[in-house]
Amino acid sequence: MLVLDSMVLFGIFCVYFVYQNLIALETHEMKNSLIALAVLAACGAATAQSSVTVFGIVDAGIARLSGSEGHVIGMSNSGQSKSRFGIRGAQDLGGGLSASFHLEGQLHPDTGTGSAPGGGMNFQRRSTVSLTGAFGEVRLGRDHAPTFWNSALFDPFDGIGAAQMDSMLGASRRNNNSVGYFLPRNLGGFHGQVQYAFGENASNAAPATKAGNYFGVRAGYANGPLNVAFASGKLDTGIAPAQGDVTAHNLGVSYTVGMVKPLFQWAQETSKAGTRPEIKQTAWLIGATAYFGAGELRASYSRYDRKNSANDFRKFAVGLGYNLSKRTQLYATHARVINKGLSNVVVGNEGLSTAGLNAAGHNTSGTELGIRHLF
Amino acid sequence: MLVLDSMVLFGIFCVYFVYQNLIALETHEMKNSLIALAVLAACGAATAQSSVTVFGIVDAGIARLSGSEGHVIGMSNSGQSKSRFGIRGAQDLGGGLSASFHLEGQLHPDTGTGSAPGGGMNFQRRSTVSLTGAFGEVRLGRDHAPTFWNSALFDPFDGIGAAQMDSMLGASRRNNNSVGYFLPRNLGGFHGQVQYAFGENASNAAPATKAGNYFGVRAGYANGPLNVAFASGKLDTGIAPAQGDVTAHNLGVSYTVGMVKPLFQWAQETSKAGTRPEIKQTAWLIGATAYFGAGELRASYSRYDRKNSANDFRKFAVGLGYNLSKRTQLYATHARVINKGLSNVVVGNEGLSTAGLNAAGHNTSGTELGIRHLF
Amino acid sequence: MLVLDSMVLFGIFCVYFVYQNLIALETHEMKNSLIALAVLAACGAATAQSSVTVFGIVDAGIARLSGSEGHVIGMSNSGQSKSRFGIRGAQDLGGGLSASFHLEGQLHPDTGTGSAPGGGMNFQRRSTVSLTGAFGEVRLGRDHAPTFWNSALFDPFDGIGAAQMDSMLGASRRNNNSVGYFLPRNLGGFHGQVQYAFGENASNAAPATKAGNYFGVRAGYANGPLNVAFASGKLDTGIAPAQGDVTAHNLGVSYTVGMVKPLFQWAQETSKAGTRPEIKQTAWLIGATAYFGAGELRASYSRYDRKNSANDFRKFAVGLGYNLSKRTQLYATHARVINKGLSNVVVGNEGLSTAGLNAAGHNTSGTELGIRHLF
Repeated sequence: MLVLDSMVLFGIFCVYFVYQNLIALETHEMKNSLIALAVLAACGAATAQSSVTVFGIVDAGIARLSGSEGHVIGMSNSGQSKSRFGIRGAQDLGGGLSASFHLEGQLHPDTGTGSAPGGGMNFQRRSTVSLTGAFGEVRLGRDHAPTFWNSALFDPFDGIGAAQMDSMLGASRRNNNSVGYFLPRNLGGFHGQVQYAFGENASNAAPATKAGNYFGVRAGYANGPLNVAFASGKLDTGIAPAQGDVTAHNLGVSYTVGMVKPLFQWAQETSKAGTRPEIKQTAWLIGATAYFGAGELRASYSRYDRKNSANDFRKFAVGLGYNLSKRTQLYATHARVINKGLSNVVVGNEGLSTAGLNAAGHNTSGTELGIRHLF
Repeated sequence: MLVLDSMVLFGIFCVYFVYQNLIALETHEMKNSLIALAVLAACGAATAQSSVTVFGIVDAGIARLSGSEGHVIGMSNSGQSKSRFGIRGAQDLGGGLSASFHLEGQLHPDTGTGSAPGGGMNFQRRSTVSLTGAFGEVRLGRDHAPTFWNSALFDPFDGIGAAQMDSMLGASRRNNNSVGYFLPRNLGGFHGQVQYAFGENASNAAPATKAGNYFGVRAGYANGPLNVAFASGKLDTGIAPAQGDVTAHNLGVSYTVGMVKPLFQWAQETSKAGTRPEIKQTAWLIGATAYFGAGELRASYSRYDRKNSANDFRKFAVGLGYNLSKRTQLYATHARVINKGLSNVVVGNEGLSTAGLNAAGHNTSGTELGIRHLF
Repeated sequence: MLVLDSMVLFGIFCVYFVYQNLIALETHEMKNSLIALAVLAACGAATAQSSVTVFGIVDAGIARLSGSEGHVIGMSNSGQSKSRFGIRGAQDLGGGLSASFHLEGQLHPDTGTGSAPGGGMNFQRRSTVSLTGAFGEVRLGRDHAPTFWNSALFDPFDGIGAAQMDSMLGASRRNNNSVGYFLPRNLGGFHGQVQYAFGENASNAAPATKAGNYFGVRAGYANGPLNVAFASGKLDTGIAPAQGDVTAHNLGVSYTVGMVKPLFQWAQETSKAGTRPEIKQTAWLIGATAYFGAGELRASYSRYDRKNSANDFRKFAVGLGYNLSKRTQLYATHARVINKGLSNVVVGNEGLSTAGLNAAGHNTSGTELGIRHLF
């Protein structure tokens, strides 16, 4: 009874909050009312089961990157999986509800540093708190952008290291200040997520200084051998887009046949800024991962076309992995980029600088040999 | 026997250390002799039981802050409790003695960053090592200032978020280089602590460059329904106070009646610097926390008066909490500041900038809706 | 069978990698072929046992440092052991193989900060991933330099705090981008390690901008009462040594008699840069650690001679420790430096600045009294 009273009061407060904000809301900021309602809907009984897990990956290796002007040899990190350190946990709240958190930061084992300026560790890979129930999951904090997932999951190289499918026009990989919603996991293989991230602009800020709000979605079907997903996201800079909008779309398909998983990815990014002509780049990748005993063979071919431009490039990548255990793998990868026109894409990785290694229009390549250990 | 010998030698060394320092000591640096003796008194037998705990809080929400010139909507963090990540542990040394450590740093889950410049994580909330025994606790490191505790414990909003009692003239919340002493916990409800923090000035440094030493105390009684405590602290800049002394006093009282805890806080801060006239600000708060089932209702009214000035303000704050479990709470808070004269206090929080939102003498308000999860 | 196939493919890839790099390799970068082979040799069966350990040290105290011009009193950290926070773990891979990682960063409990610029925490003390088997250990990442170990292990004060043996011309304590190899541990007391660290220079970089590669070795014998080790390391800046080579050699010997461990260390560092005359400094230390019950007595005398210079110095250090348990120690140390000529070495520590405390040729001293707690 008292519980009911408190929920009623809480509900009244939430409705008031939504009402008050709806009045002043700009169009781009409307989604928070949905969140308020979702949070409200999440109320349930109170019991406790919990766990805290310290986890991470240490991945280091030796790499050689080369272009027409020179080469560099040194220690790379994260050639196979992004090195990281994290803490996560979940609490069963009863009634099918659970609360969880996830803190995860980048790690450079070659230098012992993290991703903060100056090299401090932080949790910029993911830093979220979630409520999960029959309704799905509501997640708040810094999180991956929906379009990030296809670029990683439909690349045999997981979107990391010298062999990864290349990034294009700067679409968000992660967003600060995000509110995400995920469909429940029991929909027979169908899944979906939406994410809104606040630009946090003052209503009276000068338009040219406004940071962009972000909105993205991802939906797919993963069941049995088939895995297919589409994602779309837009960083919207509002009325006076001084810094440019960046829109990204991507689509991935894989179909596992025995120990072989062929996959396909299509991706497109568009950048707009004021009266500057729109820039559009389209890429597609075909690849496969094959498992034989403790071994893995990975390969991909990808093309990148810039609209109304001859400055395009292609990338070939092959890799071998040998699993010493589920958590420890030795790997070797090799990638080659064929640049056309004035394109000057250099095969890069984490840990080595490619500055000055190549001249526009020339080809580049990179090789990594390393060890990845999960904990 | 050997133990005794080593203690005698250790004692001789400590006495020598104290003696040597007493000679050269400036008045402000005398307290370390007391610490030396306390450390000396702590010697005991050697056994071992231990534990290490990883703990923290992730608190994120959506907030709207507004003033006369505009408003901002976005993701806030720490609306109900300061988000944090920490490690702590204790070791039983036998004979009633124990050693312990506590490392705790601030976390911004909306951006995945910590409190170091550049956004790295560190342990600036608390970073201490302690010896505890029948004599009480001696604690060394970076720690909360004694006056911090009343400002948090006698505020229904725990001194955090949009609804918190406002800070005033910059009294220390935490001090580097501090030595603290706490009375033992078995004094029938009476408790007390003193803290000295070194300014660490070279004896031959130019007076204008000297950093301030700090000294603070807190004492109180907490037993049954009654909780009362007084605290006082001074950052003393010595002979030539270029940067100003800041003195803080505060007093808190609460008396729990059934499920309702009314509370009162009085606080005063004074800032002095050279020949500049002293600035003095006094505040008081009345508030209450009420618990009904899983729900919590919090409210406060506070006034802030600057001596010989009409630039004062008042703050109203209300909040609702709904406990999904002991560790997970949904919360909503709303606060309003009434500025008078040229006062320009804007209701703020962690995560959103209030720059330019208000003009002096106008009123401001803020609303937060979030989730707090402890681990 | 499939395992064999994958190993053959993996081997072919590795051989190709080594071959390709050998062609382009500069002399200084040749060691990576050895690593490639070592990694290759490490392949084995795949099983899993694992553990993750959170560990660290919090060491804080009160110190007084003084010179001819003044003194400073304040809070020191790491007077007895370097304060740190780390995570480590190992996984049994079966067949005598294991994988392990070690992440460890510096901590300043007096201020709650780490060692990154701005004070963020990171893992710059050590950040490595290893494969260990009958062949020994191959270790990749940021790690201690081989010469570091003698300077710490053959100093009664573990190379830390006011009483430590002083550093000289800037030899590496730790190296980024290092590949290390350690002999297996079952050689009847003999041990050895080599470390190569990449300068990671582009082949077409201007010589004056090239960072140095590093190569170091350490070998020794530790069995029964005798412990002896020699180490040597060189930071080699290549053809145009704008920043100077630094070469370090050191030798340590200790022989435990009952509860007393006398020890000796000899160390020499040389710095060369272009046509500037070589600088050479030689030091030696004699000292002892004695244990009596819970007590420890430490003492050392060290001399530091700069070749062709009268600007030399000597250092006396004594210390007392009292073990409240294996993990918690109270300690007191005192050190005195006798400067000759224009030498101006000030007894320093972690946490206090010695700037301006002394004039060249005058003597300095320091005292620390603290507590060290391991977790």
